Amino acid sequence: MGQTSLILRLEMDHSRCSFGEVATAITEAGGDITSIDVIRPGKESSIRDVTVDAGDHGEKPFLEALKNVKGLKIVNVSDRTFLAHLGGKISIQPTLPIKNRDDLSRVYTPGVARVCEAIHEDPKKAFSLTVKRNTVAVISDGTAVLGLGDIGPYAAAPVMEGKAMLFKQLAGVDAFPICLDTKDTEEIIRTIKAISPIFGGINLEDISSPRCFEIERRLSEELSIPIFHDDQHGTAVVVIAGLLNALKVVGKRIDQVKVVVNGIGAAGVSICKMLLDAGVTLLVPVDREGAIVRGGRYDHPMWSWLAEQHQVQPEPGTLKDAIEGADVFIGVSRGGLLGAEDVRKMAERSIVFAMANPNPEIAPEEALPHVAVFATGRSDYPNQINNVLVFPGLFRGALDCRAKRISEPMKLAAARAIASVVTENELNDQYIIPSIFNEHVVPKVRHAVIETAILTGLAGRIPPDFR
Amino acid sequence: MGQTSLILRLEMDHSRCSFGEVATAITEAGGDITSIDVIRPGKESSIRDVTVDAGDHGEKPFLEALKNVKGLKIVNVSDRTFLAHLGGKISIQPTLPIKNRDDLSRVYTPGVARVCEAIHEDPKKAFSLTVKRNTVAVISDGTAVLGLGDIGPYAAAPVMEGKAMLFKQLAGVDAFPICLDTKDTEEIIRTIKAISPIFGGINLEDISSPRCFEIERRLSEELSIPIFHDDQHGTAVVVIAGLLNALKVVGKRIDQVKVVVNGIGAAGVSICKMLLDAGVTLLVPVDREGAIVRGGRYDHPMWSWLAEQHQVQPEPGTLKDAIEGADVFIGVSRGGLLGAEDVRKMAERSIVFAMANPNPEIAPEEALPHVAVFATGRSDYPNQINNVLVFPGLFRGALDCRAKRISEPMKLAAARAIASVVTENELNDQYIIPSIFNEHVVPKVRHAVIETAILTGLAGRIPPDFR
Repeated sequence: MGQTSLILRLEMDHSRCSFGEVATAITEAGGDITSIDVIRPGKESSIRDVTVDAGDHGEKPFLEALKNVKGLKIVNVSDRTFLAHLGGKISIQPTLPIKNRDDLSRVYTPGVARVCEAIHEDPKKAFSLTVKRNTVAVISDGTAVLGLGDIGPYAAAPVMEGKAMLFKQLAGVDAFPICLDTKDTEEIIRTIKAISPIFGGINLEDISSPRCFEIERRLSEELSIPIFHDDQHGTAVVVIAGLLNALKVVGKRIDQVKVVVNGIGAAGVSICKMLLDAGVTLLVPVDREGAIVRGGRYDHPMWSWLAEQHQVQPEPGTLKDAIEGADVFIGVSRGGLLGAEDVRKMAERSIVFAMANPNPEIAPEEALPHVAVFATGRSDYPNQINNVLVFPGLFRGALDCRAKRISEPMKLAAARAIASVVTENELNDQYIIPSIFNEHVVPKVRHAVIETAILTGLAGRIPPDFR
Repeated sequence: MGQTSLILRLEMDHSRCSFGEVATAITEAGGDITSIDVIRPGKESSIRDVTVDAGDHGEKPFLEALKNVKGLKIVNVSDRTFLAHLGGKISIQPTLPIKNRDDLSRVYTPGVARVCEAIHEDPKKAFSLTVKRNTVAVISDGTAVLGLGDIGPYAAAPVMEGKAMLFKQLAGVDAFPICLDTKDTEEIIRTIKAISPIFGGINLEDISSPRCFEIERRLSEELSIPIFHDDQHGTAVVVIAGLLNALKVVGKRIDQVKVVVNGIGAAGVSICKMLLDAGVTLLVPVDREGAIVRGGRYDHPMWSWLAEQHQVQPEPGTLKDAIEGADVFIGVSRGGLLGAEDVRKMAERSIVFAMANPNPEIAPEEALPHVAVFATGRSDYPNQINNVLVFPGLFRGALDCRAKRISEPMKLAAARAIASVVTENELNDQYIIPSIFNEHVVPKVRHAVIETAILTGLAGRIPPDFR
C-alpha cells in the first residue's frame, strides 16, 4: 500500500554538504520530495523538515542513503500517517462552558435533577434533552477489519475513530467508537442492547460473516433505533447507486440484464438483496464452490434464502461459466480471479465492478479494453465505489426523522439519491458516482431517507423542513 | 429546589401597558427579574426576553399574573435549565479536518491499515495511537441518581453528560456517558469489560448499593485500567480532605479523635475505610439499626469487614448514644436526623459534616451555635463537600501515568492534595475546602496521584514532567 509519507528532520553542515546531495540521495532511494520547511535557518548549518512520499519503501532505504551524506545529521523521522493518529482522532467537547456556580447548577446538580425527572416521566424526551438526538455508536469486534481480518478490538479502534471523524465532518453526526472485547454473537447482542440508551443509532462495522447477519437482525428486532451494518448495506447501497448510472451509460434496463455477483459474504448478500429489490430479474450469485442456484440446498441461511428467489438462475457452474453472456459483474471477493478472456465473454457493453480489497478481481489494465464501464473500490482509478458516500447522509436522515429502523426502501432511496448527484450532462463511463467530497451527496441522501421513512411509517418525527 | 430560571418572551402593546406593570406583576408573583433583552424594539409594541429567577415557584404563578396585564402577550416561556440541556451537552469533534483525499487516506483507508497493524503487533500502542490515552467512560445503570433513586438509564443521561462536561472543562479528559439498560450485577460487569478496549479509565456513577461494591471490585480485578466509583470514593476523598483541614482549625490530631460516621452505604463504607487509612483510632460506624460494633455479625460483607477492624468501637447503641463525646460527626444518611441537643453532647470544638442530600442531617442554623466547624454537600453554605473536587484531577493523573488501578494510597494522596490547596493563612472555620473553580485543585491532585502511583509501582508510564 503506497501511502507512507515521511517527515525527515535533517541538520545540514553547509561547509560539508548541499541540499542537492540530500535531494539526490532521497530520490535515488525511491522517494519523492513533496515539501521542505526550514525549521532553523543559519549560515553554517540549518535544520529542515523534508516531507517525502516514500511509496511502498518505508523509512529504511532513506535512512541508509542519508547516512552516506557527509555533514548531515538525521534529527528525527516521523511518519505522517502515524502523526495523524497520535493521541486519537476525536475529542469530546462541552456544548457550553461552565463558568460559574450558576452554570454548574444548571448543567449539573442540583438543576439537572428536574431534567432527569422530565425524562423519567417521558423517556421519549431523551431524544431532545440528551445527546441521543445526534449520537451514533460505531461498533466493531475487530474480526473483519479492512483487508486485515481478525485483528481484535484494540487494533480496530483507529478505523472506528476515522469513521467517527467522517460522520461529524460530512454530516454533523456525533459518533463514538466502541470496540468489543468479545466475539460471541449473543454476548455482542446483549452488550449493544445494554449500552443502547445513550445512542440514537448503531453503525455496526467490520464484524465477520456469518455472525454479522444474526447480530444485525436481532438488534433491529429488539431495539427501536436504526441499526446498520455498513460492510453489508453501505457497500450494497453505493453499488446500486453506481449500477443505476452505469446502466444509463450503456443504455440497458435493470430488469433486462444478467447480473453475476461474486463473493456471497456480508456485502455480497446485501448486494443481491438490493439488486432484487431494484428490479433485477436474472441474478447469478457465485461463491467459492460455484453458482448458488435456485432450488439448491445450503447450510448458510442467506444462501438458502437466495436459492428460494425466482430471479436466481437454476443452472450450476463455476464463476467462469456464470460470467458468459453476463451484462454486469459485481465482485466483492478476492484479487485476480478474472482475466481478460473472462470479461471478453460477457455481453456487449458490459459493466464490471471489481471491488476486492486491496487488489480488484481483475486488473484495470486488463479489463478496460473489453468493458464499457469499470469501477473499483480504489481511489486511484475513476469510479470509486466507496461507502463513505452512504453512511453519513443515511444516519443524518434517520436521526433527523427518528427512524425506528433502516428499511430496504430507505436504502434503495439512498442509492437513487447518490446516483442522482451525477447529472445527465456529467454522466459518462469515467464518472458514474460522485466524489465523497461532493457537497450534494449528504443532503440528497438525507432527504431521500427521511421522505421514504415518512411514506413508509417508519419516521418517529417529521423534521421541520418536511412540515 | 430553588433553581428555576425562566425566560419569558413578552410582546407589549405600549398604548395599553408599561414595563412597570409587567415588572410589578412578576415581582408580586414571587419572581426576581435578573435581565431584560429587547428582541424587537418598536414605537407601538415591542418584544422583550425577561429572565426571571422563579425560586421554587415554577412558571405557573407568573403566567397567571401576566394574564391579568392588559395589552400584554406571552409569546413563549423557556426554562433556562432545560434550554441548557437541549440536544445534549457534549459533542464529538475530529481532532483534524479531512480536507481532501490525501487527508482521508491518512486517517481512514488505506493509510489507517498500517496504524491498525502496529497496534495489532503491540496492543500497548493503543494508548498512543487511539483515544484510549485520554478517554474515560462515565457509566451508570441509573439506579441511584442524585436524590432521585432508580430513575433508569434514559433519565440518568443528563447527569452523566454533565459529568463529561466537567471532566473536559476542569481536566481536559475526554469522557463519554454510557447508560446501561440492565441492573444485573454480572451483566453490568460483562458489558463494561466488553466495551473497555476504547477507554483509558472507567468512572462508575450512581449505581445503587450493595451491587456497586461487587461491580467495582470485580472490574478492578479483571481489567487493567483504573476503575473508580465516584459516589463511594469521590465523596470519601473530599470528606477526608475537609476533615484534615477541619482538624487543623480545631487543633486536634486525627489519631486522637472519636469519629462517628452515619449511613454505612456506598459512600459511608468508603469514608470509613479511608478514615482508618488516614489514622483514625476510634471509629463508630452507625446505620439504621444502630452502631456497627467490633466483633458483631452482619450479612452485609462490608459491615462484616468493619466489625473486624480493631479501631471500631465495640459498644452497641443508637446514633444518639454514639454521638456523645464524639469529636467528629460525618453524615451521609438522611435529612433531619439530629437536633441541637445531639450536637451539644459532642466533645468540645466538634466537627460536623452533614452531607445528606438535599437536606443535611441537621439544619445549619441549629448546628452552628454548638460546633466549631460545619460543612454540608450544599453550595448555599460555606464548606461545600463536593466530589467535583476529586474526579477530574484524579483521572487526569491516572491517565497521564497510565495507572493500572486507583489504590487507597492514591486516594489518600488526592485528599491531602485537595486539603493543601487551602493555605495556613487562608484556613478558618468557614474555609476548610477549596472551590471547585480553584485552578490549583486539578494540578495538585494530578501531581499527588502520579507521584503515589510511581512510588507504589502502579504507574505504567512516567509522564514527561516527572522524568
